[in-house]
Amino acid sequence: MDRRSFLTKAALGGTAAAASTLAAPAYAQGNRTLTMVTSWGRGLAGVFDAAQHVADQITAMSDGSLTIEIKAAGELVGAFEVFDAVSSGQADMYHAADYYFVGQHPAYAFYTSVPFGMTAQELQNWYLHGDGQKYHDQLGEVFNLKSFIAGNTGAQAGGWFHNEMNSPEDFNGLKFRMPGLGGQALGKLGASVQNLPGSEVYQALASGALDGTEWIGPWADEVAGFQEITKTYYTAGFHEPGAALSLATNRDVFNELSPAHQKIIENASATTHQWSLAQFLNNNGAALQRLIAEGVQVKEFNDSIWDAFGAASGEVLDGYMEDALFAEIRASYNASMAASSNWIDKSESAYRSQRDRVLG
Amino acid sequence: MDRRSFLTKAALGGTAAAASTLAAPAYAQGNRTLTMVTSWGRGLAGVFDAAQHVADQITAMSDGSLTIEIKAAGELVGAFEVFDAVSSGQADMYHAADYYFVGQHPAYAFYTSVPFGMTAQELQNWYLHGDGQKYHDQLGEVFNLKSFIAGNTGAQAGGWFHNEMNSPEDFNGLKFRMPGLGGQALGKLGASVQNLPGSEVYQALASGALDGTEWIGPWADEVAGFQEITKTYYTAGFHEPGAALSLATNRDVFNELSPAHQKIIENASATTHQWSLAQFLNNNGAALQRLIAEGVQVKEFNDSIWDAFGAASGEVLDGYMEDALFAEIRASYNASMAASSNWIDKSESAYRSQRDRVLG
Repeated sequence: MDRRSFLTKAALGGTAAAASTLAAPAYAQGNRTLTMVTSWGRGLAGVFDAAQHVADQITAMSDGSLTIEIKAAGELVGAFEVFDAVSSGQADMYHAADYYFVGQHPAYAFYTSVPFGMTAQELQNWYLHGDGQKYHDQLGEVFNLKSFIAGNTGAQAGGWFHNEMNSPEDFNGLKFRMPGLGGQALGKLGASVQNLPGSEVYQALASGALDGTEWIGPWADEVAGFQEITKTYYTAGFHEPGAALSLATNRDVFNELSPAHQKIIENASATTHQWSLAQFLNNNGAALQRLIAEGVQVKEFNDSIWDAFGAASGEVLDGYMEDALFAEIRASYNASMAASSNWIDKSESAYRSQRDRVLG
Repeated sequence: MDRRSFLTKAALGGTAAAASTLAAPAYAQGNRTLTMVTSWGRGLAGVFDAAQHVADQITAMSDGSLTIEIKAAGELVGAFEVFDAVSSGQADMYHAADYYFVGQHPAYAFYTSVPFGMTAQELQNWYLHGDGQKYHDQLGEVFNLKSFIAGNTGAQAGGWFHNEMNSPEDFNGLKFRMPGLGGQALGKLGASVQNLPGSEVYQALASGALDGTEWIGPWADEVAGFQEITKTYYTAGFHEPGAALSLATNRDVFNELSPAHQKIIENASATTHQWSLAQFLNNNGAALQRLIAEGVQVKEFNDSIWDAFGAASGEVLDGYMEDALFAEIRASYNASMAASSNWIDKSESAYRSQRDRVLG
């Protein structure tokens, strides 16, 4: 990443945005079709479903006056090219995970998940009632996007490994697939980290090009078929404790839409966040039981590995602190996480402990 | 409750619904205003906000072709009369907590919260991807309603007491405000349980008509002002581990709306569920700190009290099992809760434990 280049773009973007708010809006009339590019192979469990769901809600609520045409990864642009395609106006909107775009700006990581960061609910608290959405908009002004959170996988599994992981040293030299700042943290432990689109992971793991991979969680991982390649599966991971998906519309396209269409896109995204999170969480329990029945060994990383994950994650986040916007967003995010987490500990977590104890 | 009367209505409702699916729909044309009655005093923190939010989304997404006129509790009908008003067609829709209507059917409790039941996220998993919404619809066919979940307070606090609670016997003879099946469970412990609308609770606690009350959680409770009356506050409660709010439309009115308007109501409700839950959870942490600064003593019920809550709650739920629909819904609910909870323990809870341990 060239930090100066995005800071320059930021200054330019800010000026352009300020100017555009002065112009009287001219709403497009009549029916309109928007092209949505995605980072997902067609039909990819959970993530493509979320793209389809948000598109369906928009079309249905607008009575077809706004129709979304979905392009799977590779149909118009590649999985990781969607950001630039929408930013430049080549496509109208993307559905993706924003941490694929930490090269464009590292703060996009906060809008999927950062290691040792927020759970899905904590992220919503910050996004909707703290400053989360405000900063997402601020990034969007830099890159000519209007983004909403529109999906969530919940806390992701640690992943699939050809061998057991018994100490932080076992990550040294490991060829592993993990995007975002989590992947950069594994790099600090000496792993050779790759960021492959979901639809390319199975082949890489099967061929030995990867020693291991994380993908999402039991349900999506089972559909991907990783259990056919290895039986060693770690459940809780450090890297994506509540991985959000985003729907981002080209900002010029968004500003031309009527206020009703804008509100429909916003609500369809929020609905899809909830629908998607519930889909993953509803399906994961049963999928894990099926994986175990097929011989998968379910493991947890030990405390020494978690400690190493923690130190490496802190180093990665600290490494971006010279960027003022990143530092500002991180401070807001951390303060909100501490407050949310404190109340959740005292309420829902305390309740769940008692429920488990009393019901046995 | 007259169990036979609602079972007869159920049979009739089922027939009526089957017949209505055969008739060609005739959608109302032009702009339409629907009257929403609520169980909330005007401006009541969190809960009235959710009613306002869902109404605003509907109006904005429909470009004003569907406008919602909100009536606070008492403006058209009383807080607990909204169900019958909408069922009969006196009003078009209500925003309320469905466990106020366990007298109409005890299974409505599942659509707010039942003691030792689901958290907010577990409820969403069941509602959107299990059979939760299906059964909500089935109840709606009985009572001529089309309901959606449209708000959530998160796990509620145990409540405010004039005296400390040290054993289950301390609930014997206690005059306490608690609606739904949780209140019935306290009744099994000998409490004299009252179900007062939110806006009447402060006065009852201040006058000594109540020895204690639960309301929602730190933020809404602080706004209500209970800390002015007593300083003894129990955090985690057993009674509402994720209390949902509902938006219910008269079924005939709903069926006359266009598919786009129906979809807008559905999405506005789902959006509001998430927005409302995040509002409570975002605000509770800071509110609790303010309450503590004002001298409020924060306590937790001990294990012997939790054990008594558990036994009493089981008794209450078991008492409705002769009703076939209640029994069917409870079985579906419990199976989903077990599966959801198992995965959440292994993923998000395991992650949160490690995050707390590593970050200190």
